[in-house]
Amino acid sequence: MTDIQLLGKQAKESSHQLALLSTQEKNQVLLKMADALNTHTDKILQANALDLSQADANGIKETMKDRLKLTPERINDMADGIRQVASLPDPIGEVEKMWKNADGLTIGVKRVPLGVIGIIYESRPNVTTDAASLCFKTGNAVILRGGKEAFHSNQVLVEILQAVLKESQISPFAIQFVDDPSREVANQMMRLNEYLDVLIPRGGAGLIQSVKNNATVPVIETGTGNNHVYVDKDAQLDMAAKIVMNAKVQRPSVCNAIETILIHRDVAPAFLPAIEQQLVAKNVELRADQKALNYLTTASLANEEDWYTEYLDYILAVKVVDSLEEAIAHINKYNTKHSEAIVTDNYFAAQKFLNEVDAAAVYVNASTRFTDGFVFGFGAEIGISTQKLHARGPMGLPELTSVKYIVYGEGQVRN
Amino acid sequence: MTDIQLLGKQAKESSHQLALLSTQEKNQVLLKMADALNTHTDKILQANALDLSQADANGIKETMKDRLKLTPERINDMADGIRQVASLPDPIGEVEKMWKNADGLTIGVKRVPLGVIGIIYESRPNVTTDAASLCFKTGNAVILRGGKEAFHSNQVLVEILQAVLKESQISPFAIQFVDDPSREVANQMMRLNEYLDVLIPRGGAGLIQSVKNNATVPVIETGTGNNHVYVDKDAQLDMAAKIVMNAKVQRPSVCNAIETILIHRDVAPAFLPAIEQQLVAKNVELRADQKALNYLTTASLANEEDWYTEYLDYILAVKVVDSLEEAIAHINKYNTKHSEAIVTDNYFAAQKFLNEVDAAAVYVNASTRFTDGFVFGFGAEIGISTQKLHARGPMGLPELTSVKYIVYGEGQVRN
Repeated sequence: MTDIQLLGKQAKESSHQLALLSTQEKNQVLLKMADALNTHTDKILQANALDLSQADANGIKETMKDRLKLTPERINDMADGIRQVASLPDPIGEVEKMWKNADGLTIGVKRVPLGVIGIIYESRPNVTTDAASLCFKTGNAVILRGGKEAFHSNQVLVEILQAVLKESQISPFAIQFVDDPSREVANQMMRLNEYLDVLIPRGGAGLIQSVKNNATVPVIETGTGNNHVYVDKDAQLDMAAKIVMNAKVQRPSVCNAIETILIHRDVAPAFLPAIEQQLVAKNVELRADQKALNYLTTASLANEEDWYTEYLDYILAVKVVDSLEEAIAHINKYNTKHSEAIVTDNYFAAQKFLNEVDAAAVYVNASTRFTDGFVFGFGAEIGISTQKLHARGPMGLPELTSVKYIVYGEGQVRN
Repeated sequence: MTDIQLLGKQAKESSHQLALLSTQEKNQVLLKMADALNTHTDKILQANALDLSQADANGIKETMKDRLKLTPERINDMADGIRQVASLPDPIGEVEKMWKNADGLTIGVKRVPLGVIGIIYESRPNVTTDAASLCFKTGNAVILRGGKEAFHSNQVLVEILQAVLKESQISPFAIQFVDDPSREVANQMMRLNEYLDVLIPRGGAGLIQSVKNNATVPVIETGTGNNHVYVDKDAQLDMAAKIVMNAKVQRPSVCNAIETILIHRDVAPAFLPAIEQQLVAKNVELRADQKALNYLTTASLANEEDWYTEYLDYILAVKVVDSLEEAIAHINKYNTKHSEAIVTDNYFAAQKFLNEVDAAAVYVNASTRFTDGFVFGFGAEIGISTQKLHARGPMGLPELTSVKYIVYGEGQVRN
């Protein structure tokens, strides 16, 4: 079994070196890492083939296999992703403000790395290079614990990155891989308080729940999105339909897709039959409350469980509400604080929704699918935080940092 | 036993109302709370007398009793503390930046409350009114779990604050008191993930350690300070002595006092006998490493345990180091990431210390005793974070908030 304590200790030690690297040094290493992925494409494909054959043997379903599968193009995309990280501004070392206090001390707030970041993630191997490059750029050591499906792919990717670190006289413990995908080792990681400054789980609701229940290290919860579009009585119904269709069917398996639509009763008779036609044409199954059923022909009756469920599939819950207030109350009760949208022409309804809905991103007249670090303009994304502490919403490089107060004195003591 | 789930549920419900209060409404309530403390001084003193008589019965030591004891002046100071919180700028509602992304969406980052804050604290009753007013000002509901020593004082203080809330048509669940000071209920609070957005422990190393080991809710660790002053070979020795004396003896029981001094070997012969004389005059016991013992007459031999210990007492560990690098390595190994200082005239030594020492506040030529929200100029302090996530160092009002992305669209969907 992996000695996770040892990995933690090695990571912490390497973090002191990492924190002192210049932006130029880090960028040069990142560019070498990108080149190394290209150079070792065959080796990566061989490891990936091993994972794919095991997936076949285990009868993993096609959509999962597609997420797992690497090709020369996908490997090149991963390399380009690292090059993109190299091109981003480095937040480390920035002194955000500096002031003189009443005692004459000059106090500055300097941005520093978090230290050691743990990441527990599932299937897709590109998370390995994404997370490693983002953590490296921000001067953090990282411990990567990927899913067992992509075990061989992840392992060889980390080996390639570590070889570049060694060549560059940087501790290879800056990027470590947990070579034991058992749940037991993951659980140990969740309690590695001595060494982990933060643990970021990236994956499905089961993983997030497990981390929530077990972790005593600081955690940034990511990902689960039980999101809603509310179609207000003052909505333009064609705009509402376009937004609902985009948010539900453009990519149903992602966390910023929607799972429930709420319709004001005044527009339900006009809106629901029309949207049903479009949704059914895309093979979306509807689960509706009693009132909505009156306007739908293909829907089954939704139960309490449905309002809580992140389907990540071609299923949509539908509810008719009597008011904006009821819509907001429903959302705040059942949502996972990810992304929520209202469609309305009414100024006050828009403002009320923005103010009162509790979520990382709240939209007026736009699809929830925009919640994404790249789309928001951050140039990178390590995940989407659904908690309120430290980071909320899409997390870019600054969210992988902390601060340190630096204080310049001239012999001052406190009275 | 307190139904902590119920308290959590009530707090969460009240948080929706709190988030929407205007700054003016909040300030008016705070001023009424301050007045209510003055009005009910006698009632508070009666409750406090009960706590003090139990302290006598339990043989609590005098320093603890002094922290527990309230007087009309101290109650007035608590009221003035609340008035001071009312006078501070309100971070809630501030939109820090707003931009247009490539899709034409207008995206803003708006400051919002965290939601529900739990605070577990020890003896001093003034923490009750401090924490309650800071949380209220930032639109957060708070669940207060004070120590059993101050149980009656805390209970009556919360009753007085709740009465003001009710008069003001605000949910009294905005400020709740856990009326069961058992460890069992504290442990339940540490796992109240459904309702607590953050838990802040304020107290000794034992409490912090217990929270660290048990909490699955997001935590901000506070308080423990195993701090050092390093006297460099290029230090002005009189300045170093002044800083060491201030940082050790001005108030040894606080978290920003020091526990160890590190002396460069070149200045040890001159510095150590002189500082020993001053420290001994203040009844400070010295525990020194083998090299330092050569220059000291009253010291005993320090063991490994001493380097880890936050004495919070008239005890100081002393170590001679061969270099600045050895000093930094010692600090990064044994410190609790709170406050660290170097005394030096050397520019490069100062810069290296600032860059490489891992702590919330790093000082050049000043006492560690300055690490304090009021001294830094924040106007308030809910504690001093010794972790890197969310907040580091002294925490004022902004550290009790989160953000929400507000997105204004015109019908955009994602391609």
